[in-house]
Amino acid sequence: MAAESGKPAVVLLSGGLDSATTLAMARREGFACHALSLDYGQRHRFELPAAQAVAKALGAASHRIVRLDLSAAGGFGHSALTDRIAVPKNRGKDGQIPPTYVPARNTMFLSIALGYAEVLGAFDVFIGVNAVDYSGYPDCRPEYVAAFEHLANLATAAAVEGRGRYTIHAPLIAMTKAQIITTGLLLGVDYSLTRSCYDPSSEGLACGRCDSCRLRLAGFAAAGATDLIRYRQQ
Amino acid sequence: MAAESGKPAVVLLSGGLDSATTLAMARREGFACHALSLDYGQRHRFELPAAQAVAKALGAASHRIVRLDLSAAGGFGHSALTDRIAVPKNRGKDGQIPPTYVPARNTMFLSIALGYAEVLGAFDVFIGVNAVDYSGYPDCRPEYVAAFEHLANLATAAAVEGRGRYTIHAPLIAMTKAQIITTGLLLGVDYSLTRSCYDPSSEGLACGRCDSCRLRLAGFAAAGATDLIRYRQQ
Repeated sequence: MAAESGKPAVVLLSGGLDSATTLAMARREGFACHALSLDYGQRHRFELPAAQAVAKALGAASHRIVRLDLSAAGGFGHSALTDRIAVPKNRGKDGQIPPTYVPARNTMFLSIALGYAEVLGAFDVFIGVNAVDYSGYPDCRPEYVAAFEHLANLATAAAVEGRGRYTIHAPLIAMTKAQIITTGLLLGVDYSLTRSCYDPSSEGLACGRCDSCRLRLAGFAAAGATDLIRYRQQ
Repeated sequence: MAAESGKPAVVLLSGGLDSATTLAMARREGFACHALSLDYGQRHRFELPAAQAVAKALGAASHRIVRLDLSAAGGFGHSALTDRIAVPKNRGKDGQIPPTYVPARNTMFLSIALGYAEVLGAFDVFIGVNAVDYSGYPDCRPEYVAAFEHLANLATAAAVEGRGRYTIHAPLIAMTKAQIITTGLLLGVDYSLTRSCYDPSSEGLACGRCDSCRLRLAGFAAAGATDLIRYRQQ
């Protein structure tokens, strides 16, 4: 299927496992996928080259990186993903919002994706949020996604003038990590291109112990698959 | 009233007449106002120094400028405010969405303001949108503001954990331009510091003929007040 065929969609692509799978699912649905990555000073910036590689491998129609410099406004707040706060290791699941929560991050990302979609004439936006493994993040829940979709259809000239209706797709929202990996492998995702670690080494090696690494490794184990990225330790 | 007293609030401040009045109203309500401006490559960048002057004159507790570089994602789309499209002059009111509409702009701005509010521990966000003079903009309507407030209270750890409830304040939403100016003058706003023109000269002189200049001039006339900024022509 040519990348340019099908209806246009914007796909938020971080370079991680979840958004790579989301892109593959959007492609399978026949969308011409315009991948969008945000450079927001994240510690795990090895994600951005990974996003480029993933976009290319999965036949995205385009890939763009937008820079959002919030350093003047307190960065993204007190998050272990952007600050000098330690990324928690070997943490159990406790139902609490984890210190890697970034204030209003998905709202900013979806807003920028919405503006980009309106520019492109696209009415479909994909985001790889997940309410199972990331149950602690408020902006990964179905009611949040529904509220953003409602907002999008009030916010934009394209919707108000009746040219279309925005749909926010969150195809992973109810899947376990193992289901996500199994689905992606069936769709030909090369997970060796993806990066998930919140705290990679300066050479980009995954730590193997942060929440994100632990979820990833457990997901591969449950899926009966092998994770081909390199870890400092597991 | 000291700038630091009162509950913290984030006030979106463009340097224009409306947001300056909004800041003065938020100050009058007793908020410690953290002004936030967005540098998004707008043609009317004379607004940003104006925003700094307005924030200082009205006793904001702080003022920050965040840079959002969307050039990789089509800029802000086909808007006369960011592109080489001609800013319309001497346009009548026709109920259409004007070419100065910027795709999803207020959604991006409110999202960034929301993230900043969560970082500050603030639960009040002020935006100077207006549904009377700007009736053509979808993201200036009361139902849009209500939808964003609903989203904010689902999107954030601070709301979900019960530390507070976000309120999006749009105090100008039902006011005419003359009412806005009269209110601001009563609150001591120095409108000579503000800039409204969509198409200023290279020296920063207002054009006097774009929608924004025409609304401003008509508003001053209706308020029986004098606009002290300089125009190329009126």
